[in-house]
Amino acid sequence: MSNEADAMLPEEAERPWVALGEGLRAGDGIAVTDGLNSLSPEERRHAMAHLTGEEQAGIVELIQAADAAQLLGHLPEAQAADILEEISPENAADIVEEMPEEIGADLLREMHGPESEALLAELDDADEADHLRELTSYDWDTAGGLMTHSFAAFPDGAKVGDVLSELSEDAERYGDMDVQYVYVVDSAGYLKGVLRLRDLVLTPRSRPVERIMLGDPVSVGVNDDFESLRKVFDDKSYIGLPVVDESGIIVGVITRQAVREATAEHQTEDYLHSAGILGGEELRSMPMLARCGRRLAWLGPNIVLNLVAASVIAMYEDTLQAVIALAVFLPIVSDMSGCSGNQAVAVSIRELTLGLIRPTEYMRIVWKEGILGMFNGFVLGCLLGLIAGIWKDNVYLGLVVGGALFLNTMLSVLLGGCVPLFLKKMKVDPALASGPILTTCTDMCGFFLVLNLASAVLSKLA
Amino acid sequence: MSNEADAMLPEEAERPWVALGEGLRAGDGIAVTDGLNSLSPEERRHAMAHLTGEEQAGIVELIQAADAAQLLGHLPEAQAADILEEISPENAADIVEEMPEEIGADLLREMHGPESEALLAELDDADEADHLRELTSYDWDTAGGLMTHSFAAFPDGAKVGDVLSELSEDAERYGDMDVQYVYVVDSAGYLKGVLRLRDLVLTPRSRPVERIMLGDPVSVGVNDDFESLRKVFDDKSYIGLPVVDESGIIVGVITRQAVREATAEHQTEDYLHSAGILGGEELRSMPMLARCGRRLAWLGPNIVLNLVAASVIAMYEDTLQAVIALAVFLPIVSDMSGCSGNQAVAVSIRELTLGLIRPTEYMRIVWKEGILGMFNGFVLGCLLGLIAGIWKDNVYLGLVVGGALFLNTMLSVLLGGCVPLFLKKMKVDPALASGPILTTCTDMCGFFLVLNLASAVLSKLA
Repeated sequence: MSNEADAMLPEEAERPWVALGEGLRAGDGIAVTDGLNSLSPEERRHAMAHLTGEEQAGIVELIQAADAAQLLGHLPEAQAADILEEISPENAADIVEEMPEEIGADLLREMHGPESEALLAELDDADEADHLRELTSYDWDTAGGLMTHSFAAFPDGAKVGDVLSELSEDAERYGDMDVQYVYVVDSAGYLKGVLRLRDLVLTPRSRPVERIMLGDPVSVGVNDDFESLRKVFDDKSYIGLPVVDESGIIVGVITRQAVREATAEHQTEDYLHSAGILGGEELRSMPMLARCGRRLAWLGPNIVLNLVAASVIAMYEDTLQAVIALAVFLPIVSDMSGCSGNQAVAVSIRELTLGLIRPTEYMRIVWKEGILGMFNGFVLGCLLGLIAGIWKDNVYLGLVVGGALFLNTMLSVLLGGCVPLFLKKMKVDPALASGPILTTCTDMCGFFLVLNLASAVLSKLA
Repeated sequence: MSNEADAMLPEEAERPWVALGEGLRAGDGIAVTDGLNSLSPEERRHAMAHLTGEEQAGIVELIQAADAAQLLGHLPEAQAADILEEISPENAADIVEEMPEEIGADLLREMHGPESEALLAELDDADEADHLRELTSYDWDTAGGLMTHSFAAFPDGAKVGDVLSELSEDAERYGDMDVQYVYVVDSAGYLKGVLRLRDLVLTPRSRPVERIMLGDPVSVGVNDDFESLRKVFDDKSYIGLPVVDESGIIVGVITRQAVREATAEHQTEDYLHSAGILGGEELRSMPMLARCGRRLAWLGPNIVLNLVAASVIAMYEDTLQAVIALAVFLPIVSDMSGCSGNQAVAVSIRELTLGLIRPTEYMRIVWKEGILGMFNGFVLGCLLGLIAGIWKDNVYLGLVVGGALFLNTMLSVLLGGCVPLFLKKMKVDPALASGPILTTCTDMCGFFLVLNLASAVLSKLA
């Protein structure tokens, strides 16, 4: 019995992008669709990451808009937005029409202005286009950016039975919305109250909704920023909250889940920033030159900072010439205190995130990190001093190296603890800037301490 | 009109921990409770972080168990667990009884074995103790660790009306559970089907639930690990899934929200690990010596690695003695390539998390990072080489320094891209170990390249 599965080499099964690429080159939409359908979302993401940007766009143009919408929903946002920019605005518009509004808005926000405008202009439904345009006008992490426009609202004159029967008639649509609450509005759209599904079910159908609604409902403003949203959802265990515009008209609903997702995205961003990845996440399927440029944008300023720090060494060439062994310990002292300082940076960023510390509480840092720095600096300084002293059989070398590491560790944890607070207060992202500032300072101070202490006892070292 | 608010200095209002500490020392439980109640959860967390571990425990012992349970729920887990260890097991048990089961289990899991056993032994309700003991026996990020025991299950013989009337009679309890689905089980507890609340509402009450339930429901095993849970919830938009034990009996429910929270916790852990913060998160309110020890546990091995790398410099003391200017460029070359390598580490960890790359795909990294490394290495090498050449007016110095940075950048991005994959395959946490491995290698190679190239053209440099 010979069938296609037999003929397929094991490597091919593990490299589905090969078959997708072949289907694409043959213009065989059905083969590509079948190929994609045979993969799990995770496998689809993996396969697409192995194709070039052009191939990804080709595949999305080849398959049905509904399939493409589903596929893009499984890809990282940056990649999906790149694909929508690559294909024709007409095709892109057809695909966005098949997506849940929030996903469409997220992708449009990632796209460049002209491309996203071209896409919106091609949407058949002008209302939909206006909605999306409005959604994308908000920053992604504000209430407006995180809300969904799909919610169930009924006029304040309705009866329980009216609401239940409309919900059941349109069960599919409301099911998609994942309705938890039903909102009550007056004739102008002003939010008046909230109905819990549970209360609706357990109340006689003839009763007016006004009688069982919870009045004066908590709501958030459409421009509320991430910090304040996090606080509101932190305070109470709301599943979702209505979002109102400046005049109090309900414009959407924001869920706890959306806020949590935004939190996770902020954490990911912090991690990438602290490692020097800027401008949104980098995927290896992105164009090479763009990746090079974005990484260099971070490395360029860094090389300048490195030069500034190393210039300290240049000022002490004579000392170094006299005691060449010091050159071995310069990078050790600066690296080790950099590590200690980075630990303090991470703890400060974490404590800022959790609200355990305010950006003005420097004294607390000085106190809490100072003692720790003294202790850890002492331990590490003794260790390195001992090694240096024994290696060159010179007590003074040990004292110079150990003393420099002790002092520089203390300084580095103090600085590492305070810099994120300072940056936060200056509205600069601490994850992005703390590392370079800290490294430059601890390098400079480390080099200075080793070489300056050595100069002081030069006769005993040489 | 003079009242308390007038008498309170502005600083005091901003430092609520002062009043809490005073209330504690006076043994005034009511003052402390009132003080806490006047604060938002965020302010409570901030205030508690400014008290010592002993004071935190004192406050928790002073107030009512229900208030304490609420307070601990707002604190970082590590801090709440420390407090429960500090107070008497009887008090701790009273407090845990007032908590939602999942939060209690999370805290017990953070506690040390003997302390958590002592607490469980003091619980009045033996069933509750067994439940908690079972929950804590699972790793925190498995289905068992993330599930809740509270769910609504009904026998397969029940009618829609039975289910609805029980739900409404016990509305408060089921409301707490945040019921989205109702499960149908046979007499032995085996999961047979799932009922959607919506379907229940819209079906005649006399119909047996077996007729409207969705049979053959998707479920996860109690020992399923985080990766597989993430995949399941990634695949389909389930709000929650039943958790079954080895024999198929339903033991809990896991929600999408729980999986998302676990994802965020993993990301935080990655960030802290990459900065050298081990053994759970560090808070500055923790005992000083514990903080010192945990940070040293990461710094200790690092100093050894640093010594290994710097030993390369010791081998080239003669070269360095001849061209002391090289000492200025040693830390620059090693630091800069370290930065480039760290960018590649972050991209690899991110791609592994998103499933865009498998831990065996080294060739893809070599290809994608190799070209980038060549380009960025060339740009950075030219820049630094130019500066070095002009500074000492020596073309060969520029070639040595620039060439070393070029080669070392290439090597570093290749290594930085591959190391996380290798560690992942070895089941070692990439966030924890990638940094030190990368830094050591790039330092060694950077020092070697600068000094070795310099030795080769020594006569032109000196």
